[in-house]
Amino acid sequence: MNSTLSELTVSAEALEAFTVDALKKAGLSAADARTTAQVLVTTDTWGVFTHGVNSLHRYIQRLIAGGLNPRGVPTIVAEGPAWARVDGQNSVAMVTSVRAMEIAIAKARQCGIAYVGVFNTCHFGAAGYYATMAAEQNMFGVAMANDAPSMNAPGARGRVTGNNPLAFAIPMSPRKPIVLDMALSTVAGGKVSAAHINGKPIPPDWVVDMDGNPSSDPAAFVNGGSLSPMAGYKGYGMAIVVETLAAVMPGASMLADVLRWKIDNVATPTGHGAAFIAIDVEKMMPMDQYQSRAEAMAARIKASPTRTSKDRILMPGEREWDTRDRALRDGIVLPADVVLSLRELCDELKLDLDALRR
Amino acid sequence: MNSTLSELTVSAEALEAFTVDALKKAGLSAADARTTAQVLVTTDTWGVFTHGVNSLHRYIQRLIAGGLNPRGVPTIVAEGPAWARVDGQNSVAMVTSVRAMEIAIAKARQCGIAYVGVFNTCHFGAAGYYATMAAEQNMFGVAMANDAPSMNAPGARGRVTGNNPLAFAIPMSPRKPIVLDMALSTVAGGKVSAAHINGKPIPPDWVVDMDGNPSSDPAAFVNGGSLSPMAGYKGYGMAIVVETLAAVMPGASMLADVLRWKIDNVATPTGHGAAFIAIDVEKMMPMDQYQSRAEAMAARIKASPTRTSKDRILMPGEREWDTRDRALRDGIVLPADVVLSLRELCDELKLDLDALRR
Repeated sequence: MNSTLSELTVSAEALEAFTVDALKKAGLSAADARTTAQVLVTTDTWGVFTHGVNSLHRYIQRLIAGGLNPRGVPTIVAEGPAWARVDGQNSVAMVTSVRAMEIAIAKARQCGIAYVGVFNTCHFGAAGYYATMAAEQNMFGVAMANDAPSMNAPGARGRVTGNNPLAFAIPMSPRKPIVLDMALSTVAGGKVSAAHINGKPIPPDWVVDMDGNPSSDPAAFVNGGSLSPMAGYKGYGMAIVVETLAAVMPGASMLADVLRWKIDNVATPTGHGAAFIAIDVEKMMPMDQYQSRAEAMAARIKASPTRTSKDRILMPGEREWDTRDRALRDGIVLPADVVLSLRELCDELKLDLDALRR
Repeated sequence: MNSTLSELTVSAEALEAFTVDALKKAGLSAADARTTAQVLVTTDTWGVFTHGVNSLHRYIQRLIAGGLNPRGVPTIVAEGPAWARVDGQNSVAMVTSVRAMEIAIAKARQCGIAYVGVFNTCHFGAAGYYATMAAEQNMFGVAMANDAPSMNAPGARGRVTGNNPLAFAIPMSPRKPIVLDMALSTVAGGKVSAAHINGKPIPPDWVVDMDGNPSSDPAAFVNGGSLSPMAGYKGYGMAIVVETLAAVMPGASMLADVLRWKIDNVATPTGHGAAFIAIDVEKMMPMDQYQSRAEAMAARIKASPTRTSKDRILMPGEREWDTRDRALRDGIVLPADVVLSLRELCDELKLDLDALRR
């Protein structure tokens, strides 16, 4: 490994300040830059490096080229007691998604549950961040988005639906929220790419090749193949459910009309859609009663007999919360590919990556 | 095959009338008997025979023994603009679930979305029926329930969560609703039992044995094993999500406190929970605009290139709607095990199965 391909350990505060600076240079207001930086850096503290500041470079290229609007203001275009439709105005998707979940939380506080559908948005990063916003307000949270097709369907040859992200967060106390954040393919494309780079075979249920046949060769995905939906028709069906809630209903671009945010023209808006749901659990029963029930559920599951003495039964998201604790204490260890991406960004924006070492 | 083990072709009308008669004999009101019969027979017209009148015998044993209350009246115990908590009073779960979804639909008509959580209920059959009720009212529908543990979790040795059913229905026109109705295990227990009866091996991701190790022997499930969650930690996580919405929040029995409705004492209520969500799509945009968008999504997916010239890309639920069309035209072909179950029921209640042949 040469110096451009090494890890970098940074504090969350320094990474956030750096991200704010970069986004302000690209035209974002200080407030929007802070919101975006919080989402991305929190994601990195979870160890979900595919969806953190690794994307910053591309977002900023879009902001500069016009594929994202640095001065877009997410705006409610229609609403009722427990729902809203939001035009993201093609602002950075973190800004729009945080705003949309805030609206859902406020309306759920009044009505018990609320749905907010979004159009004119872009790749929103880690769905789990927005679901967790609700959980931190003692609400059950759901976040989802559509994406350009990358996933096969039963009987299909090529890419049919997006690998649409879907996250749920369950409020807990004193535990951290239970957070289930998943793509609807068997594995994310990044895992296939990693196997490809490392020249390793993959299980036959990860991808299909360009002819629609299961393949153990990761190159099959790169060469016109597609990701296999998780659990076959169930993952395919869930992708249609998310496409409906996050694109058909809000009025966003659908299926192949959504541009690939990483690959396609950075000057053109991608047209993604998203949806956010919050449920105020305190409406159903006193909060302490809910909390003791939720904690009992988690405790009972975790106390189940394990397969071997070395196994642990984890709550969804538990590993990520542990990773975050370590990251806040010892620093975030950014992987080499993220460092490389930030270095390229620094070259373009005349920023100093070494400022991160402070 | 002897005469007790043969199929029986019946009309939906006759099967419904028979079911109403049987339920009235067990003490249900005519209205509740009709509601229950509609749910069960519709399920059979879909070809989902595991969840139709096949369960009638056991429900009626519970009604007679006290494990279900024939005069229970599902009752709202707390509510707000877009939510309600319903005590099923241990009535037949079809009655409670239909009532709960009606409440969700009425509240969603006012607020845009509504959540109804249920406690004191039992096995509710096909989740897809209740989700479809919403879709037939131009609403996006969700139905789910918890169940006694049958499913493994990553790292666990035995049964940790229920194989919690979860269904979504998407309103379409002129198409039939898209209905995704799934258990959260790789396959339902019935498929494992069928392989066991037929002495056939199963794929290694269907079950784990009593030690928590994947097994290709269907006997492993029967002998203290568990069903494997679909897509590993994702199916496990989804089971926790459903347990939260359908049991923790409504105040129903959780995890192993839920009795096994088929096996455990028929005189004791099972304590299941359930949850129902409806979203009024017409709030977001004019109905004809929504419909043309939803139809375009389905049409584009179905028009995707297929793997071979013989493959067809189906919408979730499409096969079941086709099966129902045939069943309404040519009769429902009840499988031998269902006929056997009805025959036993007839013996107990002094009903005439041959009345079905009319």
